[in-house]
Amino acid sequence: MAQGDYRMLDAAGLVGLLEGLAPHVRLGGAPSEWRIREVGDGNLNLVFLVDGPEGSVCVKQALPYVRAAGPSWPMSLERAFFENAYFRAVAPHVGARIPQIFHYDPVLYCTVMESLSSHIILRQGLIAGRRYPQMAQAMGEYVARACFSTSNFAMSCEAKMEAERLFAANQALTRISVDLIFCDPYRQSERNRHTAPQLDSLVSEIRADSALKVAASRMGLKFMTQSEALLHGDLHTGSVMVNAQDCRVIDPEFALYGPIGFDVGAFFANLLLNWFAQPGHATSQDDRMAQQEWLWEQAVVYWNTFRSTFLQLWSQAATGDAYPNVLWTSAQDSGALQAARDAYLQNVFADMLGFAACKMIRRIIGFAHVLDFESIRDLQRRAHCEAGALRFARSLLIHPQQFASLDTVGDALTS
Amino acid sequence: MAQGDYRMLDAAGLVGLLEGLAPHVRLGGAPSEWRIREVGDGNLNLVFLVDGPEGSVCVKQALPYVRAAGPSWPMSLERAFFENAYFRAVAPHVGARIPQIFHYDPVLYCTVMESLSSHIILRQGLIAGRRYPQMAQAMGEYVARACFSTSNFAMSCEAKMEAERLFAANQALTRISVDLIFCDPYRQSERNRHTAPQLDSLVSEIRADSALKVAASRMGLKFMTQSEALLHGDLHTGSVMVNAQDCRVIDPEFALYGPIGFDVGAFFANLLLNWFAQPGHATSQDDRMAQQEWLWEQAVVYWNTFRSTFLQLWSQAATGDAYPNVLWTSAQDSGALQAARDAYLQNVFADMLGFAACKMIRRIIGFAHVLDFESIRDLQRRAHCEAGALRFARSLLIHPQQFASLDTVGDALTS
Repeated sequence: MAQGDYRMLDAAGLVGLLEGLAPHVRLGGAPSEWRIREVGDGNLNLVFLVDGPEGSVCVKQALPYVRAAGPSWPMSLERAFFENAYFRAVAPHVGARIPQIFHYDPVLYCTVMESLSSHIILRQGLIAGRRYPQMAQAMGEYVARACFSTSNFAMSCEAKMEAERLFAANQALTRISVDLIFCDPYRQSERNRHTAPQLDSLVSEIRADSALKVAASRMGLKFMTQSEALLHGDLHTGSVMVNAQDCRVIDPEFALYGPIGFDVGAFFANLLLNWFAQPGHATSQDDRMAQQEWLWEQAVVYWNTFRSTFLQLWSQAATGDAYPNVLWTSAQDSGALQAARDAYLQNVFADMLGFAACKMIRRIIGFAHVLDFESIRDLQRRAHCEAGALRFARSLLIHPQQFASLDTVGDALTS
Repeated sequence: MAQGDYRMLDAAGLVGLLEGLAPHVRLGGAPSEWRIREVGDGNLNLVFLVDGPEGSVCVKQALPYVRAAGPSWPMSLERAFFENAYFRAVAPHVGARIPQIFHYDPVLYCTVMESLSSHIILRQGLIAGRRYPQMAQAMGEYVARACFSTSNFAMSCEAKMEAERLFAANQALTRISVDLIFCDPYRQSERNRHTAPQLDSLVSEIRADSALKVAASRMGLKFMTQSEALLHGDLHTGSVMVNAQDCRVIDPEFALYGPIGFDVGAFFANLLLNWFAQPGHATSQDDRMAQQEWLWEQAVVYWNTFRSTFLQLWSQAATGDAYPNVLWTSAQDSGALQAARDAYLQNVFADMLGFAACKMIRRIIGFAHVLDFESIRDLQRRAHCEAGALRFARSLLIHPQQFASLDTVGDALTS
């Protein structure tokens, strides 16, 4: 079918689509018994939950424009294709950390997948002050496995180049990242907004800070050139769904080959954004100090788990062309290789902080903001939280040499 | 036509091809008056020179196997496509530094181009002790222009991703580089050879040097991940043709997106290999000391020209998404940006040395050797020259911090 056969899904369209997928997709009963809800709250898509007597599915469809901006900002439908391609690429390696995919429709640009109706968006849980004991470890393992298995550490150079070919076509969403993360926040742009007038002077300072702009540009160039692994590309706490026992990664439509620190840093940044937002959600019953402490602990567990999982994979599953196995034969070789692995992870750590800082800044003074701050109704309080995050992120970017370990990051956070 | 219509060109095939291209390709006279010579001396291709009464052309055809190894090592014909794609990509930016391309034939995998019959291979000229006063500057400018214009400094992120898609298909030749440059030389392999028994113990030392293997692997990973610019991919002195006035780059069939230092370092390495080979070509009339001195001067001119040209382009022709122009508005911005540019070029310098060292080593103890040493008939003398180059390259790789400038490299060379 031609691309012209695309149409926005409505209830009738959904029923037609899902009837065609039976018995593979099992809802049970007659379509008249199905409950259909549109629940999309992101920036880009329609999301339906469909519940039948015997089962539920989630149907996500790309819209031909940026939902948050309206039809005046057109957006390639192909992002649904890349989302599906990412899920397929990482599925063998990340186990149940992604939803089960039942069907991808290349004409409707929609994916029929497992409904996660017992889960909520992690960001919402964290804002509500909830805790998810397994989340940090699960996410550290997830990023390590997804990145390692799509890198030159696990793949032959040919297989990785083939994957790079595929994802290098995801240009429309990469353009969004390049503009909204690494450029717009550092200049006047119609797409920016910030809590005004409270943050006006800090924002002006940031946009006049030459060292900061150079540092952000350096990270932007890394983003566009350092093709280390297949990235989710938008791994914030709104792309993670949780309940007490489980944790799933969704929405990889920004998928691209890039620096591992970009994915690692995205999630780290969003834990920190939530950390900075906590005082804004304090009540007379809960000052949220304990939640802040818990959040930082999770950030530490997250990085440490990422690091140890990546190192473990490197020593046990290095089937790629990077640091090829055939070279390491002696005990001395093993020692040198271990030191090289540590040095590599230290570079990922530095990248994590740099990208995290860029992402914190863009969520406060750029186009797309986060509910962590947006849900603080008192603008004075909100601005106070946001200013703390901005100053911290700026420090990460312009004084990277001061942050060689998580301890120094934690000290700076609470100082 | 199907790929099955490929056939190795012979005289009759050449005449048929060239007759079909008239009058675009002008040889003059009747085909019976054309002189046809097969002159290929590289590792991979047939190369014909065809001279008619009114003009000449060069016809280069890919063979379905590695010519240096025979039909037992099959090789993708597609490399002719990538050679042509590279020429097309850089042609608008490098002026007359590449041959004029008249025709590319996608069935025969052959290119009809300007005949450079008044030129010789630079490597041969340097071995003969000749000097080419414009060569170093021309090559520095060439690499700067080719790399800058295909990077995120000049291209939009979309255009660069599109180019990356194209060249990420050049997997067969990338496999050769990955194996022959970054892996095989550092282990026992049937494809390796070295001047034996003279170099036996040094080669054993190299293959047991854990720090060296880690450093070579680090460069190998950079090669596979750092997608900075479109590279020639095999820019040694055998890929450059010269005469007293002119200098042309040929044979870009290894073209891929990669680290700029890889191309910069390839040419640098081959100037150094020739430097180390000079004593092997000394005679009672010419000890080649002055030629050595001249060669190092050329290496210095080459790097300095590359650097200043790249910086000039960055300040005058930065139309890409890297360090985006819109961010730099104040005098303070200009100063910070200039410092960032210097730091970037310092990283390219370090990459140049690292890649140059890998390339020097592989040309002495790996599969494909260079005529600079191979033409030294006395094995004792040859081995002495080669050992000097190996020790120097090893030092560049395992003590990179000692080589922060060309002065320190030059001092180490002559110490």
